Amino acid sequence: MRVLARDIVAAAGKSPVAEIEVAGWVHRIRDMGGVNFVILRDRSGIVQLVLNEKPDLTLESVVRVKGIPAVNDKAPGGAEIRVSSLEVLSRAAADLPFQVNSDVAKTGLESILDNRTLSLRNPKIRSIFKVQATIIEAFSAYLRNQNFTEIKTSKLVNSATEGGAGLFEVEYFDRKVCLAQSPQAYKQTMVAAGLERVFEVAPAYRAEKHDTPRHLNEYVSLDIEMGFIESEMDLIELEKGLLSYVFQQVNEKNSEDLVAWNAVVPDAAAVAASPVVPYEEALKIANDEAARTVAHNGDKNKPARLFDINPEAERLICEWSAREKGSDLVFVNEFPRRYRPFYAYPKGATGTMSFDALFRGLEITTGGRRQDNYEALVEVLPKFGLKAENMGGYLAIFKYGCPPHGGFAIGCERLTQKILGLANVKEASLFPRDRKRVEP
Amino acid sequence: MRVLARDIVAAAGKSPVAEIEVAGWVHRIRDMGGVNFVILRDRSGIVQLVLNEKPDLTLESVVRVKGIPAVNDKAPGGAEIRVSSLEVLSRAAADLPFQVNSDVAKTGLESILDNRTLSLRNPKIRSIFKVQATIIEAFSAYLRNQNFTEIKTSKLVNSATEGGAGLFEVEYFDRKVCLAQSPQAYKQTMVAAGLERVFEVAPAYRAEKHDTPRHLNEYVSLDIEMGFIESEMDLIELEKGLLSYVFQQVNEKNSEDLVAWNAVVPDAAAVAASPVVPYEEALKIANDEAARTVAHNGDKNKPARLFDINPEAERLICEWSAREKGSDLVFVNEFPRRYRPFYAYPKGATGTMSFDALFRGLEITTGGRRQDNYEALVEVLPKFGLKAENMGGYLAIFKYGCPPHGGFAIGCERLTQKILGLANVKEASLFPRDRKRVEP
Repeated sequence: MRVLARDIVAAAGKSPVAEIEVAGWVHRIRDMGGVNFVILRDRSGIVQLVLNEKPDLTLESVVRVKGIPAVNDKAPGGAEIRVSSLEVLSRAAADLPFQVNSDVAKTGLESILDNRTLSLRNPKIRSIFKVQATIIEAFSAYLRNQNFTEIKTSKLVNSATEGGAGLFEVEYFDRKVCLAQSPQAYKQTMVAAGLERVFEVAPAYRAEKHDTPRHLNEYVSLDIEMGFIESEMDLIELEKGLLSYVFQQVNEKNSEDLVAWNAVVPDAAAVAASPVVPYEEALKIANDEAARTVAHNGDKNKPARLFDINPEAERLICEWSAREKGSDLVFVNEFPRRYRPFYAYPKGATGTMSFDALFRGLEITTGGRRQDNYEALVEVLPKFGLKAENMGGYLAIFKYGCPPHGGFAIGCERLTQKILGLANVKEASLFPRDRKRVEP
Repeated sequence: MRVLARDIVAAAGKSPVAEIEVAGWVHRIRDMGGVNFVILRDRSGIVQLVLNEKPDLTLESVVRVKGIPAVNDKAPGGAEIRVSSLEVLSRAAADLPFQVNSDVAKTGLESILDNRTLSLRNPKIRSIFKVQATIIEAFSAYLRNQNFTEIKTSKLVNSATEGGAGLFEVEYFDRKVCLAQSPQAYKQTMVAAGLERVFEVAPAYRAEKHDTPRHLNEYVSLDIEMGFIESEMDLIELEKGLLSYVFQQVNEKNSEDLVAWNAVVPDAAAVAASPVVPYEEALKIANDEAARTVAHNGDKNKPARLFDINPEAERLICEWSAREKGSDLVFVNEFPRRYRPFYAYPKGATGTMSFDALFRGLEITTGGRRQDNYEALVEVLPKFGLKAENMGGYLAIFKYGCPPHGGFAIGCERLTQKILGLANVKEASLFPRDRKRVEP
């Protein structure tokens, strides 16, 4: 029976001590004169093996070992195994293109991504995806507990209604369809279809040519839609509770992973204190913050005026929130009509009931209440250059009774990135896709 | 504060009884002489509204109602609401293309799929997706508990290595990629990368032209991969435990939905008793079963001999298992080499360590141990018409230390179909894709 690295101390403490079996990868080999040490790595951690003879091993080979566990305060984890037999299950070639046991801070992103089979063996890199698994688990658990139903919708959508910009085309038998940018119309369909509260965890696609540290062409979208809301404030309250739970779960389940990245997550009080700032006010805050930074640095040039909430403004608004409100999370609501899609629910003459969530300088969520009135939608379409006759599928959602509703989506990789403080969102994707990369 | 339909009896039992608010869809309207009844439907169930005046309502409109709850044994659910005010939130057009409150057994599949916003409002149809949500939740929970890590891998794969058959092509900037048929290579990468045990819930794509009650061109694949196994028997044991838990959870959380479909799930004892039958023996069982059926029916013609385990054989093997072993689930292992892909791990001269799981007449799982030896893979490729130089990405998984491993996938829609006894797998997909259908 195989014992995991994390359980060796317990096995060494048994009386009488019995022979155990461990298995994993050769992380390090050390010849200390008469004694040979091998550090073995498995999914749970590392353990030191002590061998009398010099083993014929290559780094990263997979081995199965039998031996007697023994407490040793000097060994990593506080125990070691005195090996009686060692079997090589899979011998690694000696020309490792990636040094698993080295400091990954010195390794370039391209090398990490090119060598996924090896780079993920590095415990620090692997920890990113342990955190991501917790995010997905906590997101789902919180929503189920709030009576949301998990759905899985098609990612192949008819291209006619959406227009080609930003969409990847798929050859679908004798026609063309597109990869869905978002499950939004389907989420809305499910609300109107009486599920009322739904969530989905699924890939989403953007055929954008940007190559920035904040963009992916394929990402995991954590999507929510909810019926019988009054305004975007109901959604913001939901997201606060949801993120608070996600942070708490990451703190509880991934404490070692957070330490590895020198990261902390906001506590519940900080999330609750997150400000909700209307768009125009948020823009003013960003400009004031830019001026403040310049003054602070003793710079004589005035900062360039920000005319909308661009990535630079997002960063500045978050700086303001962290300092003034004690929260790394800010909600900007009441986005002007011109920045939002046709389906955003109007608020006042020029605003909408829509919002973004900014976290540590980055937009991680866009959402809002949607227009649920059929006639109002038909009326607004031409102002956005759209024709009702091309939007029949979408309009059908509202024709036969649709409650007031809205929703939002969280970019899973962006949230992972910002929790751990990763420089590039691609680090938070197992197999990221960008304009140049479709492998591995 | 809104009260759900299922909680009206409790609200009626309070002392003193307070006015409450309910909201939902108009399911039925009844004019009983002086009294008017409206049946209101929300996500939790239905409740009877009593109005003094005839309301100006259309079926399926969304309304918000205030009134006093009162116990009434004759009302559905045992309580009703005496309405003091009724507000129409969204008026449904009168030309409903789908009768939500009618018996769906009489409705054709095309009509159900064409009118998803309406057909899902039918409680029986909606219950399919409540069961499916439980399947996904239970699948994930069981595996997390067994120390599996949830992963999300790319669905856009380089086409060069896989060959074009059965793949949908995607225009990806200035090149072509394909939609992944399975995350298998990525699951294997994750095992080799030290996660050891992984699972994924994600869409998978098959560009097959079949239009049968068992095929979908896009489906939700419940995928598993696991390191340090000895043979496919470890995987079969895992799947038995997993399905046993899924069935138990469905039984617990979806008892009403099972009743709606007149369905039962196998209990733990039945799953544990599921036979594991080697391929050749299973084929003989299928032929014997066919002969038995013919004899039983007094038919004079011999049945056509089955030469492989086709859909007809799957059905017959399950009939045998249900009768002889008391289990609706059968595992067929030791598939011949010629029926399995190049990566299947050999067993004996002509067999493989691979298996199918058949449930109630349908294959719901294919899996097995994979070849993990780099040289053995290189050697076997030409026999399958493949070239090592085109398989570099796949072969790289095994070059630097890969443990013995294997995995399997469960088709989520097929499992849902067979749990509820649905005639067509498309009924178990919210927005199914087939050769003709890409909408809604």
